Amino acid sequence: MSDLLWQKPGVTVDARIQKFLAGDDVVLDREFFLHDITASKAHAEGLQRIGILSADELSGLQRELDVLAADFGSGAFVLDERYEDCHSAIESRLTERLGDAGRKIHTGRSRNDQILVATRLWLKEKLARVAQLSSQVAAVALDRAQAEKHLPIPGYTHIQRAVVSSAGMWWAGWAEAFIDNATRAADTHRLVDANPLGTAAGYGVNLPLDRDHATDLLGFARLQVSPTYAQLSRGKFEMAALEALGGATLDLRRLAWDLSLFTSAEFGFVALPAQYTTGSSIMPNKRNPDVIELPVV
Amino acid sequence: MSDLLWQKPGVTVDARIQKFLAGDDVVLDREFFLHDITASKAHAEGLQRIGILSADELSGLQRELDVLAADFGSGAFVLDERYEDCHSAIESRLTERLGDAGRKIHTGRSRNDQILVATRLWLKEKLARVAQLSSQVAAVALDRAQAEKHLPIPGYTHIQRAVVSSAGMWWAGWAEAFIDNATRAADTHRLVDANPLGTAAGYGVNLPLDRDHATDLLGFARLQVSPTYAQLSRGKFEMAALEALGGATLDLRRLAWDLSLFTSAEFGFVALPAQYTTGSSIMPNKRNPDVIELPVV
Amino acid sequence: MSDLLWQKPGVTVDARIQKFLAGDDVVLDREFFLHDITASKAHAEGLQRIGILSADELSGLQRELDVLAADFGSGAFVLDERYEDCHSAIESRLTERLGDAGRKIHTGRSRNDQILVATRLWLKEKLARVAQLSSQVAAVALDRAQAEKHLPIPGYTHIQRAVVSSAGMWWAGWAEAFIDNATRAADTHRLVDANPLGTAAGYGVNLPLDRDHATDLLGFARLQVSPTYAQLSRGKFEMAALEALGGATLDLRRLAWDLSLFTSAEFGFVALPAQYTTGSSIMPNKRNPDVIELPVV
Amino acid sequence: MSDLLWQKPGVTVDARIQKFLAGDDVVLDREFFLHDITASKAHAEGLQRIGILSADELSGLQRELDVLAADFGSGAFVLDERYEDCHSAIESRLTERLGDAGRKIHTGRSRNDQILVATRLWLKEKLARVAQLSSQVAAVALDRAQAEKHLPIPGYTHIQRAVVSSAGMWWAGWAEAFIDNATRAADTHRLVDANPLGTAAGYGVNLPLDRDHATDLLGFARLQVSPTYAQLSRGKFEMAALEALGGATLDLRRLAWDLSLFTSAEFGFVALPAQYTTGSSIMPNKRNPDVIELPVV
Repeated sequence: MSDLLWQKPGVTVDARIQKFLAGDDVVLDREFFLHDITASKAHAEGLQRIGILSADELSGLQRELDVLAADFGSGAFVLDERYEDCHSAIESRLTERLGDAGRKIHTGRSRNDQILVATRLWLKEKLARVAQLSSQVAAVALDRAQAEKHLPIPGYTHIQRAVVSSAGMWWAGWAEAFIDNATRAADTHRLVDANPLGTAAGYGVNLPLDRDHATDLLGFARLQVSPTYAQLSRGKFEMAALEALGGATLDLRRLAWDLSLFTSAEFGFVALPAQYTTGSSIMPNKRNPDVIELPVV
Repeated sequence: MSDLLWQKPGVTVDARIQKFLAGDDVVLDREFFLHDITASKAHAEGLQRIGILSADELSGLQRELDVLAADFGSGAFVLDERYEDCHSAIESRLTERLGDAGRKIHTGRSRNDQILVATRLWLKEKLARVAQLSSQVAAVALDRAQAEKHLPIPGYTHIQRAVVSSAGMWWAGWAEAFIDNATRAADTHRLVDANPLGTAAGYGVNLPLDRDHATDLLGFARLQVSPTYAQLSRGKFEMAALEALGGATLDLRRLAWDLSLFTSAEFGFVALPAQYTTGSSIMPNKRNPDVIELPVV
Repeated sequence: MSDLLWQKPGVTVDARIQKFLAGDDVVLDREFFLHDITASKAHAEGLQRIGILSADELSGLQRELDVLAADFGSGAFVLDERYEDCHSAIESRLTERLGDAGRKIHTGRSRNDQILVATRLWLKEKLARVAQLSSQVAAVALDRAQAEKHLPIPGYTHIQRAVVSSAGMWWAGWAEAFIDNATRAADTHRLVDANPLGTAAGYGVNLPLDRDHATDLLGFARLQVSPTYAQLSRGKFEMAALEALGGATLDLRRLAWDLSLFTSAEFGFVALPAQYTTGSSIMPNKRNPDVIELPVV
Repeated sequence: MSDLLWQKPGVTVDARIQKFLAGDDVVLDREFFLHDITASKAHAEGLQRIGILSADELSGLQRELDVLAADFGSGAFVLDERYEDCHSAIESRLTERLGDAGRKIHTGRSRNDQILVATRLWLKEKLARVAQLSSQVAAVALDRAQAEKHLPIPGYTHIQRAVVSSAGMWWAGWAEAFIDNATRAADTHRLVDANPLGTAAGYGVNLPLDRDHATDLLGFARLQVSPTYAQLSRGKFEMAALEALGGATLDLRRLAWDLSLFTSAEFGFVALPAQYTTGSSIMPNKRNPDVIELPVV
């Protein structure tokens, strides 16, 4: 493993302890790598604004961070067990290429606010995606509701036929559901849209960092002011995002569940095109609607 | 048990089945009783608007519903195992007092939309309360942050002293946390603020119910249009409310956790007044900060 | 509220604190009331063995505890908000009836080991019941498997007909499932079958209590030796019991799920007798297999 | 991707569907790869016993499966996105090396019972490991309990000093806890120790497979008789294993939690050797007991 960011002279950390602590960080951190680079560029710009980096050092760092992002994208750079985590990997590469200028990027930040800002950017990206997909599902469902409003199907309660209903009514329910899901994802996006960069290990730093500027640069809607709250919000924002995703997933599961009934021979309302089904390795004549069944499980 | 709303002539439901299905409904439904009465009054008004109830029948129903609410509040009426659930209890009482007019209130509704609208009103009440309490906690924390900004305490990471910090900084973190909690509760309140009354058992009814009017009467921000979605949102809205509550509870737990350390003899930063502590039944000289410890568990 | 076990002269606990701490204890404790009485009788016998109670005091306590159990059973005694919890209620009654002898029963015990031993007895009772019911389900399923082994039904995968199978094969699967569930419940019963009485608040007591004798009296298979572990096992044993119950419930849910498909008009393999179904309050001709549907949810 | 086990002539599965269904299977299946090879060897032997494979075909398959296991171990063979899952990868390799003999190994089995038997072997391995580690922890704790029985430390309740206790008493509690954890892991091992191989897709196969022989070969304690139950036990056995692991983890967490208090400057009962601590990337003089803190989170 490369030199550890926090290593001290004269002390070698026990290898088993180090392995336990690192866990699968380098695998998980692949999700956050590009976001850490984005935040690192903003942090470098901030350090230059307060005179800690020269203009040359800043442009060197920006350039090398862009190269690293490209290398990561192309597979030329792999985040693997040579490194402790994505933060160490990035700084190690910068130091290798730029010497002291590379080392200086860690001034005024801690891995605590680095992982916070990277996961925050990642959460925002995912929540925006959930909102967008939910809207698309709602739009498709509305179109189909219109198109199939006169197509009669039974309305069920307790899996018992209850009334005459229509496919249009079935679709309209999903449209309204996914509009709510898009709203929830957008609300949650707004909740987590707060910049923790600059809070360091939970007590801030003794440097005149311009946190508002970093907030603008990174596209956050607001600053997360309190350094202790930046730490405390860890887990809380992630739970909120999971819940937003969970609501959409619950509806998706119920939709798939209806379809799994409707594609059965007994109901027979829906047939999947052959290229959307899979076969059985043991029953050659069978065609399985796996794509529907998987979300039900 | 009183007559069942759905009982048919000539069939007696097996007593064990009935007991299993009813479960603890009458106990749980005590939470929803007054909300069902509120919704029943709006529904009765709606039935009168479309000519199903006369003005006299409506005023009789409104009066008896008010009397029942008062009796429930005073303990003169107890929702217990004489009834299947709160819906049956209310209609049974109306029928007993008003005869046919009482029976007619079930026109155009189902226990499905009754429980939906009652839980929706209940959720709104609880979420408004969480938002309000979170704001109050934030206000107290902000005041204390101001008052104690020069009171030094150690800043900890890993329960190890890390830097010199202040009580003010500690309080400010909680202020920002509970502002977010209030926001989350308000967002969730807005999500669930949709009126399901009139969707019946998931397929609507063949009556010209004025659902927009009922929405206004009951103070909902919008109509939940699709009858199938009204059913599908069951559970989803409840999960969203639990998450909003869960975020606030998580912070409360961490706050209590800090205080439980700070009240220990070893830390000794905080002392609780004697009237806020409890004693031990086996160790007479001990004073326990149970009120802090309980939220930690 | 009656006098608190841990109340000290000169200090009045704030009423809101007390209310928060007591919570719904008196309601929840109704489940544990009789078990606390059982354990109290054993504890009293132990105190007499080491000379803390006289033979007369013991027989008075035993008699009054039996009377209280009977009063609780008949409803003559109600555990309600007059008391802090079941422990306080029991000792308060004994003191009222027996004076000092009643007060002495708290010697050498704490509410910590009282609730531990009461919940332990309760868990054992419930786990024995799960084991017994699972065995009964398995026995019924085996009989039906034998009786219906030549009754053909489709075998489904992905809710698609896959092969010709039999009702007998369907039943046999449930038989084997519930045999495993009975085994799991029995294993879990054995795990929790350890007596915590005598561990007090987690550090034992300075009295020569004969814990082995109490273990025999209460029918525990072994002693839980370490007082600190008695406290630590709180929650762990409850989670184990929930898991044992959860496995059985999961199978029950899947069984109900099969039946809910099989009773649909589309499948039509199973018909429920009318007295096992419910009606709809809004659709008079419908019969609902609620008893099957409830476990699916 | 290599040919799919269930592909049919004339139908090409939509690439997005296939990608969705495959998910991260090849990554997750790395855990099960060697177990599938073990089960494949037993299945091949079974096929030879009933005349479906010749002795030569069997020895070819056994040899190639051993070679593949070695290649997987050395990294010469990587399970990656060229394959759909571990089952396809193994059969694809056998067919490539052995032609028809390779293809014949899929006779009488389905990916359903393949993944069941592979996860079952994996669960058994993990549960045996939890049992063994729990016993080791208990043994260490017992030794320390003996060695430190006269070392006084405060006994805490509510993080308040309650009584004089000893380090020995503290250790003894963990010893008893981990003995229970070892028991729970062993009980759970026994529960899942049932062979599902031969149940195919949930309805068995029309071949006289000697399932008892396969059970012995694979070292299972018993046969899982019912093919439908083999499918139904999916998830149930995994939940049981998680619970067994969860109990041990809960204790570990509480142990780590005690240590994190004890290593604080305020308590100061325990000091970690420098090589067991980590540094801070932002506070150079700090030493952090991460190894203790991680399990607490």
